[in-house]
Amino acid sequence: MSTIEFSKRQKKIMEIVQQSEPITSEKIASMLEVTRATLRPDLAILTMSGILDARPKVGYFYSGKSQFNLFSEEVKRIKVETMMSLPIVVTEETSVYDAIVTLFLEDVGTIFVASKGYLSGVISRKDFLKSAIGGTDMNKVPVGMVMTRRPNILTIGLKDSVLDAAIKILDHEVDSLPVVEREIVEGKEQLKIIGRISKSNVTKLFVELCKA
Amino acid sequence: MSTIEFSKRQKKIMEIVQQSEPITSEKIASMLEVTRATLRPDLAILTMSGILDARPKVGYFYSGKSQFNLFSEEVKRIKVETMMSLPIVVTEETSVYDAIVTLFLEDVGTIFVASKGYLSGVISRKDFLKSAIGGTDMNKVPVGMVMTRRPNILTIGLKDSVLDAAIKILDHEVDSLPVVEREIVEGKEQLKIIGRISKSNVTKLFVELCKA
Repeated sequence: MSTIEFSKRQKKIMEIVQQSEPITSEKIASMLEVTRATLRPDLAILTMSGILDARPKVGYFYSGKSQFNLFSEEVKRIKVETMMSLPIVVTEETSVYDAIVTLFLEDVGTIFVASKGYLSGVISRKDFLKSAIGGTDMNKVPVGMVMTRRPNILTIGLKDSVLDAAIKILDHEVDSLPVVEREIVEGKEQLKIIGRISKSNVTKLFVELCKA
Repeated sequence: MSTIEFSKRQKKIMEIVQQSEPITSEKIASMLEVTRATLRPDLAILTMSGILDARPKVGYFYSGKSQFNLFSEEVKRIKVETMMSLPIVVTEETSVYDAIVTLFLEDVGTIFVASKGYLSGVISRKDFLKSAIGGTDMNKVPVGMVMTRRPNILTIGLKDSVLDAAIKILDHEVDSLPVVEREIVEGKEQLKIIGRISKSNVTKLFVELCKA
């Protein structure tokens, strides 16, 4: 895949076809006062890039494809596993105070909570701040009491796309998602915590794509 | 600008040129067992997209341009002003408690602090949490005492690119930047607060580009 900067004439052709579709190459050539031979490479480029559709004996149509259309196909293939960070995990018994210290030491926005090795909850800076102004005794209360608990947790899989993760993050107004693998343990679905994907990871991908 | 999915033959041509540059179209044609006329549209596409360079009487060279190269040129033109959100601003005298309440009501991660109408500081969820566990009397202490103060604040301009904002956010590990306009007041540079750009805005742009 690659990208093309269109010439002035190619942009003019797009306009003409958009306004007068279907239109033959003869007509386009006469409107631009050039020969059909001159137009041939331009029309080839525009047809191959999907901007124009050509139908034999009818003429050219404007397909209206967006400029980022095919780029996005490529980006959609970038998987969570290639961009995720390490998860920071505490147990349900950890005090709110100790969990906040962990949050600062690891410099993350969200901590995952595990019970018997599997995901049981999620707690963010916002949750901690809420319990702080709510007058919670942070040294006594365990995170298990203030966290968001399963099943009210959004998760994402290793093989899901970063785009899907980004959409989930935005739609549900969270900062990050636990990356999990599903396991059946004694007939019950459990979530193994594999990683963490956040707005920072998406921002990093955005910068990498632009710098590439 | 648009994007192109290359055909098998075009990919094969890229490989051949990469291995044997400079190479003439005759040689490429004979290696692929097709006529030069057949190759002409392929070579036109590859040259126009910047993948190949053609030098008269010498042949084709591989330019080695990255696939996202030209895409990024387009994205770099997207300005902060098109993606930013409204800034949430309090005065220096506001109590930490009231500022936290504002943070929750407005559902933002960072609040800007103004003095005489101009930016004087920035305070994030992380800063609030730090002062909460530090035992600050949140009803008495004003945000002016716990905020990050100018000149230790990163800012960005309306006409800067979202990419530059994203790089600043990542490099300095902050969640958002105040969007400002510089004004000279009584011989001193002051910053008028115009907006806010965060990892959420960058994530939103990423999703929009992919969905386009």
